[in-house]
Amino acid sequence: MTLGRLYLVPNTLDFGMDGQTVDLREVLPDAVIAQAARLTHWAAENAKTTRAFLKRVDGVHPLALPLQQQQILELPRPPKGRTPAPSASDDAAWQALLAPALQGTDVGLMSEAGMPAVADPGARLVAAAHAAGVPVIPLVGPSSLLLAVAASGMNGQSFAFVGYLPTDGAARQARLKELEAHSAREQQTQLMIETPYRNSALLQALIQQLKPGTVLSVSCGLSLADAWTHSAPVSQWKKSPKSVPDKVPAVFAFLAGR
Amino acid sequence: MTLGRLYLVPNTLDFGMDGQTVDLREVLPDAVIAQAARLTHWAAENAKTTRAFLKRVDGVHPLALPLQQQQILELPRPPKGRTPAPSASDDAAWQALLAPALQGTDVGLMSEAGMPAVADPGARLVAAAHAAGVPVIPLVGPSSLLLAVAASGMNGQSFAFVGYLPTDGAARQARLKELEAHSAREQQTQLMIETPYRNSALLQALIQQLKPGTVLSVSCGLSLADAWTHSAPVSQWKKSPKSVPDKVPAVFAFLAGR
Repeated sequence: MTLGRLYLVPNTLDFGMDGQTVDLREVLPDAVIAQAARLTHWAAENAKTTRAFLKRVDGVHPLALPLQQQQILELPRPPKGRTPAPSASDDAAWQALLAPALQGTDVGLMSEAGMPAVADPGARLVAAAHAAGVPVIPLVGPSSLLLAVAASGMNGQSFAFVGYLPTDGAARQARLKELEAHSAREQQTQLMIETPYRNSALLQALIQQLKPGTVLSVSCGLSLADAWTHSAPVSQWKKSPKSVPDKVPAVFAFLAGR
Repeated sequence: MTLGRLYLVPNTLDFGMDGQTVDLREVLPDAVIAQAARLTHWAAENAKTTRAFLKRVDGVHPLALPLQQQQILELPRPPKGRTPAPSASDDAAWQALLAPALQGTDVGLMSEAGMPAVADPGARLVAAAHAAGVPVIPLVGPSSLLLAVAASGMNGQSFAFVGYLPTDGAARQARLKELEAHSAREQQTQLMIETPYRNSALLQALIQQLKPGTVLSVSCGLSLADAWTHSAPVSQWKKSPKSVPDKVPAVFAFLAGR
């Protein structure tokens, strides 16, 4: 029997941005919207946002199956945004998500925003697909990380996404020192994110703790109407402070001098 | 006077893939194609491929200005794929690329494939835009790196793109050891690329030199019709070898065990 495929379906980046909803056609290729409309089985970070997404898809390309008849199962939830610690106990739950593909039906993997399995849960399902021989098809869509690298004007030949920094002040400072040294040694752009309500706190820590010559870039609300990116040496951020709103998703990046 | 903006316009990933040309609507959002059609001034990695791209754009959304009348200037060329070493001598050339924006006209930055300024030249123009106060707008499109992270099933909470490895055997082996140790310490997925005709050589080096338990992922021709991703521990790659064609763009990724 032919196995189904696992499609990695990107979502928009307007999650939680009331009043700033983007048209799907702003950020997703037409063929990707059409492919999403053909799928009937989903592994979702969140079933509710997946349903909302499919309603928007239906407005562009009619769904193959009415929303009520689609199978939408949620991923087992690791602590949001931290590296998931695999446990044997939820192996069965992950296998259930893959079951339709093993029986020949394509499955879509979706997260609440952007590319699934990138800075988001789902990698474990992708790994399970590879182990089972299920073809994995990533579809093109928005990634705030990728957009932020391009928009930063920093080194795009070498860059790292390091996730979240520790929230504890001393631990965060130690981690920043470590990342800044690595950035200087490898000339590697370092990217990180924060839960939006801590955006300002992270920006202040970066400005105060990075070296004056390190270039710091903040990208805010990428792909949304009011998106902006500001890149300047830390010494300039100190002279002319610029604030980052605490409700909008932001990506922070820096590149240390040699 | 209002400054123009610098749009980062993504290209398709079918560069050099004769007979595997994709429809723009497969990989670019409609609004991105429409925005590309509105631009009349370009800073391009390659003028010829930019013209070819604009012809495809014109087939979806008519160009605001006929192709012959568009201003397409090429970026000063650093050694392809290596970290550019800025020299004072080509400062003027970079400033010329930005000149239309300083006079109020939007400029598009394009590379031969994928996102400009990511694993491609152009970051210096973006940095110059920031220094001059020119708003930088990255548009959504395909990035083989981002797609490869998602499709690998490896850690998408921490990953690094490290560019090209040294081609000299001993230097490459030393670099691989260093990256594998870093990957183990940080639990960070490491991504690299190679000029396609050396794909097989790189794959062999990875299989022979990485530890048996390190997971290795190869993504080949992403976003094209025959795209595939294969992820497995190095020990499995050794048992059932899988070849990577020497003409198709590929992304290599690995994640070492703790």
